[in-house]
Amino acid sequence: MDQHTPVTVIGLGSMGRALAEAYIKAGHPTTVWNRTAGKVPALRDNEAADVSTAVKASPLVIACLTTYEATKSALEPADLAGRTLVTLNSGAPAGAREMAEWAAGRGAEYLDGAVKNVPAAVGDPGTLLYYSGSRAVYDQYFPVLRVLGGDTVYLGAEPDLAALYEYAVGGTLLPALLGFFQGAAVVTARGLPAASMVRFTAKWLEMIASVLPDMADEIDSGRYGDPASAVGLFEAGIAHDASVAAEFGVDTSWQEGMHEILRRAVAAGYRDDSVSSLIEMIRRPQVSI
Amino acid sequence: MDQHTPVTVIGLGSMGRALAEAYIKAGHPTTVWNRTAGKVPALRDNEAADVSTAVKASPLVIACLTTYEATKSALEPADLAGRTLVTLNSGAPAGAREMAEWAAGRGAEYLDGAVKNVPAAVGDPGTLLYYSGSRAVYDQYFPVLRVLGGDTVYLGAEPDLAALYEYAVGGTLLPALLGFFQGAAVVTARGLPAASMVRFTAKWLEMIASVLPDMADEIDSGRYGDPASAVGLFEAGIAHDASVAAEFGVDTSWQEGMHEILRRAVAAGYRDDSVSSLIEMIRRPQVSI
Repeated sequence: MDQHTPVTVIGLGSMGRALAEAYIKAGHPTTVWNRTAGKVPALRDNEAADVSTAVKASPLVIACLTTYEATKSALEPADLAGRTLVTLNSGAPAGAREMAEWAAGRGAEYLDGAVKNVPAAVGDPGTLLYYSGSRAVYDQYFPVLRVLGGDTVYLGAEPDLAALYEYAVGGTLLPALLGFFQGAAVVTARGLPAASMVRFTAKWLEMIASVLPDMADEIDSGRYGDPASAVGLFEAGIAHDASVAAEFGVDTSWQEGMHEILRRAVAAGYRDDSVSSLIEMIRRPQVSI
Repeated sequence: MDQHTPVTVIGLGSMGRALAEAYIKAGHPTTVWNRTAGKVPALRDNEAADVSTAVKASPLVIACLTTYEATKSALEPADLAGRTLVTLNSGAPAGAREMAEWAAGRGAEYLDGAVKNVPAAVGDPGTLLYYSGSRAVYDQYFPVLRVLGGDTVYLGAEPDLAALYEYAVGGTLLPALLGFFQGAAVVTARGLPAASMVRFTAKWLEMIASVLPDMADEIDSGRYGDPASAVGLFEAGIAHDASVAAEFGVDTSWQEGMHEILRRAVAAGYRDDSVSSLIEMIRRPQVSI
C-alpha cells in the first residue's frame, strides 16, 4: 500500500479536523468536506465544493460525524461505489450493522471504528483506535489507518464490534467524571482548588486500571469468592458518603442508583464477594431452565 | 530519624498486613496486633499479646482498621501518652477531627492518612500516601512513613484534610467500576470475555486522567464556555445507551441519576458548555445575597 493514498475526511468537528491534519502532515493528498463550508480556515485549500466531489477524490473516505444517521444523510448525494468507507462516530451496535448494510447497498467497502483518545492525541504512537468489518479491507488500508494512532487494533469481521466495544469501554467516562466533579464540589466547598486533586485522581485511575485484570477474571469465571474489595466494604461506605454530603452541602442524588445496586447485592447474598459481583445486578435475571 | 524506628501496626486486614510486612522488610522492629489473634500466621512472631503491649512497643503506632470508631474502640485499653498515632482508615472529615481530639485527649500526637493504592503496591516507589496533621510530626517520621510508598505527601495541618481528599479522590472508584461492569455485561452478553476489554479500558482511564487538568481549570475559574466535550454530547448519548441496554438485556437503572444530572444541566442552559459544568448541578444552590 502506497503510504500516500489519497484520503477524504467528512466532518470537521474537533476530531475530524485532527484526522485531516494528521493525514496532511503525513503527506497524504487530503480532501475534506463539512456541511458548513469554511468552518476550518486552515483546511480551506483541502476543501471540496460538495460531498460528491470529496468522495470522488479518494479511495478511502473517513466520516467523523456525530451519529450514523448524520453520516448517511451527509453521504447521501455521493457515489460510494468502489470506495472504502470508515466511520468514526459513536453509536449503538445496531446502528453500525445498519450502516454496514447501507454501505454495501451502495457498493462500498466498510469499516466501523473508534478513536479512543482526545483530538490532540491523534497521530501519536500510543493512541488507540479499533476497527471492525472486513479483514481484507483493514489489512489493505492498515498503513493509512495507522497514521491516526500507533495502537491500531482489528476487533473482528462483525461490523458492529467496534460500536460494541465503544459502548463497553466508553462507559467509564461519564461515571468517572461525575465522581471527580463530586469530589471537586467538596474540595472547592472547603476553599481548596479542584486542581489540587488532579495528580491524586490521576494516580487513583491508574490504581483502578491495575485491578481490572483480576475483576475481568472474576467476571469471566463467575468466581467472586476471593475478593480484593468486597461488596460489603462499598455498602458500608454509603453512610459515610451521606455524612460528607451533608457537611459540605453537596447533592449526591446522582449516586442513588449506585447505592441501590450495592444494597440489592448485599440483599442477594454478595456482601463478602468481590465488588465485581455487582455485574450480576446489571445483568437482567436470566430465565431458569 | 533512625531508619529503624520501632513501628506498631494495629489491624491485620489485607492492607494492615502489607504495611507490617513492608516495615519488617525494611528492617524496622515491628509489632502487630489484631483483634482476632493469629490471623496472619506469617506475623505470629511479631504479634503482641494485647493492644497495650503493642502500643508500648513503639513510638509510632499505625492503625489500619475499617473506621475511626473501630480504631478508638481497639485502642481504648492502651496508654497512648507520648506516642504518635497514624490512622489509615477511610472515614468522613468529621470523623478525622474527632479522632484528632480523641488522640490529643490521650496525650498522643496524631496524623491522619490514606494509602491510595492496593496492598500489593505498598512499599513501591510510585505508591501514593497522603497525610494531614502536625507538620512537625510528619517531618519527624517522614523517613518511616516513606517506607510505605515513595510518593508520600503532606496535605496540611488541619487533621481532616486527608479524609477530605480521601472522599474527593476516592469518589471515582465505584462509578468507574460500575461503568466497567456495565460494559462487561454487554460484552459478555455477546459471548466475548470481559478480559477482552481490559487493555482498552486501561487506556481509556489514561485518557480520562489526561483531561482532568483542563476540567479542574474550568471548575476553578468557573469558565465552561470553551468545551473539549460539551454537556449536550453526553445528553445525546442517553438514548443511545438505552438502545444498547435493550439490545443486550442489561439493566441500566443505576445510571438514571447520571442521566438526570445531564437533563437538568441542559435545562439550566449548559448544553454547549463543558461537561465540567455538571459540578454546578452537584453543588447545592447557594442563597443569593
